[in-house]
Amino acid sequence: LAEGERAAPPPVVHYHMNNVTITSDPVGNRESILILTPLARFYDEYWDNLVKLSFPHDLISLGFIIPKGREGNLATQQLQARIEKTQAPTNKNRFASITILRQDEEPTILQDEKDRHALSAQKERRAAMSRARNALLFTTLGPTTSWVLWLDSDIIETPPSLIQDLASHDKPLIVPNCFQRYHNKDKDAMDVRPYDFNSWVDSPTAKELAGKMGPEEIILEGYAEMATYRSLMAYMADQHGDARTEVDLDGVGGTALLVKAYVHRDGAMFPPFPFYHLIETEGFARMAARLGWKATGLPNYFVYHYNE
Amino acid sequence: LAEGERAAPPPVVHYHMNNVTITSDPVGNRESILILTPLARFYDEYWDNLVKLSFPHDLISLGFIIPKGREGNLATQQLQARIEKTQAPTNKNRFASITILRQDEEPTILQDEKDRHALSAQKERRAAMSRARNALLFTTLGPTTSWVLWLDSDIIETPPSLIQDLASHDKPLIVPNCFQRYHNKDKDAMDVRPYDFNSWVDSPTAKELAGKMGPEEIILEGYAEMATYRSLMAYMADQHGDARTEVDLDGVGGTALLVKAYVHRDGAMFPPFPFYHLIETEGFARMAARLGWKATGLPNYFVYHYNE
Ligand SMILES: Nc1nc2c(ncn2[C@@H]2O[C@H](COP(=O)(O)OP(=O)(O)O)[C@@H](O)[C@H]2O)c(=O)[nH]1
Ligand SMILES: Nc1nc2c(ncn2[C@@H]2O[C@H](COP(=O)(O)OP(=O)(O)O)[C@@H](O)[C@H]2O)c(=O)[nH]1
Ligand SMILES: [Mn+2]
Ligand SMILES: [Mn+2]
Repeated sequence: LAEGERAAPPPVVHYHMNNVTITSDPVGNRESILILTPLARFYDEYWDNLVKLSFPHDLISLGFIIPKGREGNLATQQLQARIEKTQAPTNKNRFASITILRQDEEPTILQDEKDRHALSAQKERRAAMSRARNALLFTTLGPTTSWVLWLDSDIIETPPSLIQDLASHDKPLIVPNCFQRYHNKDKDAMDVRPYDFNSWVDSPTAKELAGKMGPEEIILEGYAEMATYRSLMAYMADQHGDARTEVDLDGVGGTALLVKAYVHRDGAMFPPFPFYHLIETEGFARMAARLGWKATGLPNYFVYHYNE
Repeated sequence: LAEGERAAPPPVVHYHMNNVTITSDPVGNRESILILTPLARFYDEYWDNLVKLSFPHDLISLGFIIPKGREGNLATQQLQARIEKTQAPTNKNRFASITILRQDEEPTILQDEKDRHALSAQKERRAAMSRARNALLFTTLGPTTSWVLWLDSDIIETPPSLIQDLASHDKPLIVPNCFQRYHNKDKDAMDVRPYDFNSWVDSPTAKELAGKMGPEEIILEGYAEMATYRSLMAYMADQHGDARTEVDLDGVGGTALLVKAYVHRDGAMFPPFPFYHLIETEGFARMAARLGWKATGLPNYFVYHYNE
């Protein structure tokens, strides 16, 4: 088969959905996982970390969605170069399959832009991210997928047992704490600090704020202009605490996020529009909750975001 | 390959989303369509009609979702019997591929039950239908699909050019008028009457009703207990009118419904929970509208529902 072609599917395929188990022992039960990554910029450290995951690689399929344009072209080339080695037929540790979607849209805000985190830019930016995540999800989720791991392209360090560790909690959706390594000038030493503020427990203030908002307004986390007094998982971390400590969450971040496939199959997606005044991954947690699937956070279990 | 097995996918597949065209001439541009059918009961007339569709069958993939249990088993057997003939390797007119999902849940309300249309049963029933539609959609939509045609298993008569006719309007989502043939005793002759009341234009009354509702309440169409004064496409029909007449809709039915794949990829699904006080296909139209994709109806273009 030439690149870009697909093997002709057999005329009829039957899938019994109760044969697709989703358990706390996905390795023992040979459960398939789909790792989905929206990719605007490629980091070698991301791929190094991915390849080191100890979950059986023949159970892992990868899906990427990459924007159109110069930056996306570069990311595609860099990804492709690493894939060629990893997926070599001689490599016993290669992944089950890889799908790369190239969007027909350029990103609204380039990765370089300093104010991509500015409050004013967030709604448009996160709506575009939602559409990218949905397109990736809707086109790669298969009838035999048990798990979906959302993993951003700038997550460069996780425990190798990330998938097994998260799955062992047996939760519909579960999110580790996303931190960042940096050089602490005061200590003149490497240190860690919180990075992702999208995993939180709701607050009366935020609910009141939402109650007064117009239908198109959204609440965003981590902006001084909009104090929500939500309890952020980022600040619940205890570096020496039990890594298995769980906390119930109302919003989740998507830098690393494990989801049982039936949560998505029921319809949970990333709302590109205000959904209970939330969008993207935070809106996803709200939608999953509407479907009966509550989010769990692991405040003392860490993954690390690239430091630009 | 044995039944139930899939051809090993090639290690890496690239898809350029702007190569997947979605135009008013899907035959000329060789665009793929996925016909999706939630199937609780099998009708030979449905299959007869499907096989007669003049859209090139090598561009058509079929997807079915069938509930667990006795009724689902029977429907599966009947479907399988017809598939075996149609998909015979010697049949040049066979479809590109067929996927059958068997749910791990029994239907909440059996097809036999007389009060499956009772207002009280609707919310639970249509929530279950939404989950079934979402599971089917999320697991069968592929990166090369241009169109999705939702077609209920009890739609037993359409023009053979159904797909081309609907696609020629070049709309993000478009719905024909779903009628039913019956014996009119007064005339002692066969006649037609409206069947599906889910395609409508919103009314001030319905909006006011929604404004006063609690977050868990839904508006349903076609119930005397809940007069909405919406304009129903069912009543706009003119048997001798121009079949190409279009009307803008706010709610759509799903008995036959053509959707451009990017509407679903953006995230539009069938809400199993109240979404602006709407669920299932009507909620889908609302969600598509939130994403910027407006629904169109064809009041004088007919498809026919089975008469029990
Ligand atoms: N496909 C796609 N991916 C994007 C786009 N913008 C960002 N990403 C990726 O989405 C993820 C989150 O974006 P990022 O800018 O890192 O968000 P931040 O960590 O909150 O600043 C990363 O994996 C990015 O590479 C986009 O426009 N399209
Ligand atoms: N998978 C699945 N399909 C169903 C279920 N209930 C109904 N259907 C199918 O969904 C479609 C719509 O249901 P139907 O009862 O005909 O709705 P009505 O025409 O509004 O009465 C038909 O194709 C049914 O065969 C269910 O529980 N599961
Ligand atoms: Mn990032
Ligand atoms: Mn029906």
